[in-house]
Amino acid sequence: MTLGSASARPTSSRFPSAHSLIVGGRLFLIDCGEGCQMQMARFKVPFSRLDNIFISHLHGDHVFGLFGLISTLDMTGRLSPLHIYAPEGMQKLLDTISDQFGEPKYEIVVHTVKCHEPELICQFKNLDIYAFSLRHRIETYGYLFKEKEPLLNVIKDSIAEHNLTLEEIGTLKRGEDVVRRNDNGEQTEVLRCEDFTYRPFEPRSFAYCSDTAPFPKLQEWVKGVDLVYHEATYASDLKALSKTTAHSTSEDAAKVALAAGASKLVVGHFSSRYRNLDLLLEEARSVFPETYLAQEGMIFDIPEKLSPMKQRQ
Amino acid sequence: MTLGSASARPTSSRFPSAHSLIVGGRLFLIDCGEGCQMQMARFKVPFSRLDNIFISHLHGDHVFGLFGLISTLDMTGRLSPLHIYAPEGMQKLLDTISDQFGEPKYEIVVHTVKCHEPELICQFKNLDIYAFSLRHRIETYGYLFKEKEPLLNVIKDSIAEHNLTLEEIGTLKRGEDVVRRNDNGEQTEVLRCEDFTYRPFEPRSFAYCSDTAPFPKLQEWVKGVDLVYHEATYASDLKALSKTTAHSTSEDAAKVALAAGASKLVVGHFSSRYRNLDLLLEEARSVFPETYLAQEGMIFDIPEKLSPMKQRQ
Repeated sequence: MTLGSASARPTSSRFPSAHSLIVGGRLFLIDCGEGCQMQMARFKVPFSRLDNIFISHLHGDHVFGLFGLISTLDMTGRLSPLHIYAPEGMQKLLDTISDQFGEPKYEIVVHTVKCHEPELICQFKNLDIYAFSLRHRIETYGYLFKEKEPLLNVIKDSIAEHNLTLEEIGTLKRGEDVVRRNDNGEQTEVLRCEDFTYRPFEPRSFAYCSDTAPFPKLQEWVKGVDLVYHEATYASDLKALSKTTAHSTSEDAAKVALAAGASKLVVGHFSSRYRNLDLLLEEARSVFPETYLAQEGMIFDIPEKLSPMKQRQ
Repeated sequence: MTLGSASARPTSSRFPSAHSLIVGGRLFLIDCGEGCQMQMARFKVPFSRLDNIFISHLHGDHVFGLFGLISTLDMTGRLSPLHIYAPEGMQKLLDTISDQFGEPKYEIVVHTVKCHEPELICQFKNLDIYAFSLRHRIETYGYLFKEKEPLLNVIKDSIAEHNLTLEEIGTLKRGEDVVRRNDNGEQTEVLRCEDFTYRPFEPRSFAYCSDTAPFPKLQEWVKGVDLVYHEATYASDLKALSKTTAHSTSEDAAKVALAAGASKLVVGHFSSRYRNLDLLLEEARSVFPETYLAQEGMIFDIPEKLSPMKQRQ
């Protein structure tokens, strides 16, 4: 969900960068601009389910909501640790803030992100999270959220048909063939995994590309992603400015989505000078039709990609 | 205008403490909780007219909006200095923030407030501003805004009637009697100031009493104020909690307004646990009927108090 779609200068209706992401019941926050906690309250994002925050870079409009949120989480009686993934400098910043304003009762674990190509920085049961470097004026990272490959499902009817044992089912689910033997240990039958199983769903993925100038590697790094968020500070009328500030136009964003073969693109981080965003949307859609404008409170859903076999059951 | 009426934990509709005040075209900001700049944009508070910010104390819910606001003012191309009045610690805090996030192109002048009884900390042509200490868990100040005593007006008809010279008018306006003499220097006539002048208006005043436990001196310090803002974090059901946290109930606030002989009381800084504020309002009004609840975007006007003579003209 978009919590903030503005760039550095917020407007009366657009807050600085902040986004929430829910995967399998887990809540993630990606960037935390000023007012993030108010937007969470407004759009009923459950504070209690937040354990992990990913910060793209240490510019104020991506960070200034963190101090208030940390304090509010403390007031909710939180005791479990809060993990913050961010570039170098976050620990020092939090130390200064807690020197002045006090430390929360729960632990904050800062994970310093330092990489160039996509690197696995964090994994959960069903989800891998990668960081990759962007090209901005300071050290900046994008984040890629990928569901893990699921265990294979065994075709139901085949269980009774072939009298599959629990052990055999386990073997097939892991993607291995079952080799049956007689009492003498001689091979009698091979049940080929591909004949007995199907992939219950295709893993979904989401890439967050925060402030960045365009660069060719990016489209490779987010290849095949279902949903990509990409900053689009300007329309092409300010292409020159986008270069000097190391930002992207909405067309730049659309080109990344197209080249990456993404299914859907959400653009955000709009310069406050655009009162009307139609131009940004048009320019992006002329390159990549499945482009949408981020807007506070808007939810972009990635539908489950169940296999036809799974859907039938 | 109330920009934020919440206490430490904001809600979906209430932002942390922040208030704007306009006196004779000058804009002042009093406390600057997170999201202050978004509220300013939302309620069309003119950023360009802001030169002075008064911070009551260095708790996050009164300060966390400052960093983003400073950055936004920089993006507007501001060059004139910004004055911040705050307790000890503000300079260090701003230094750390600018170490990490860069310094604005304009100058920030920090005025460290340090006093007990009301002390004049800043004066403008028509306005004096005093700070006075409050009783909170950390060093905290209230602020008193007082219009200056106006020059006296000379009753129009008397100018022609007594052939008053410009010099004589000047003397009368300053509150002095005019002594007329003949060529020999002998006194011939005394024009008594009180017979020739009137006070064009009564100076207005506003007191801001941020987080504080009740204490007797406060009502003396804000004696006769027209409008008083006083925190009212709790209703009387949480009187005990208000004591341990060094806060006030709405009844405490009302008692201050009553004892001070204020004309109007605005209460704010409401604990997020009160979804409905009727109880806080009722309890305050039972002591001081002219009590109003602060609400985002609400303007509390202090009407000009013109003399009957002025109104006739």
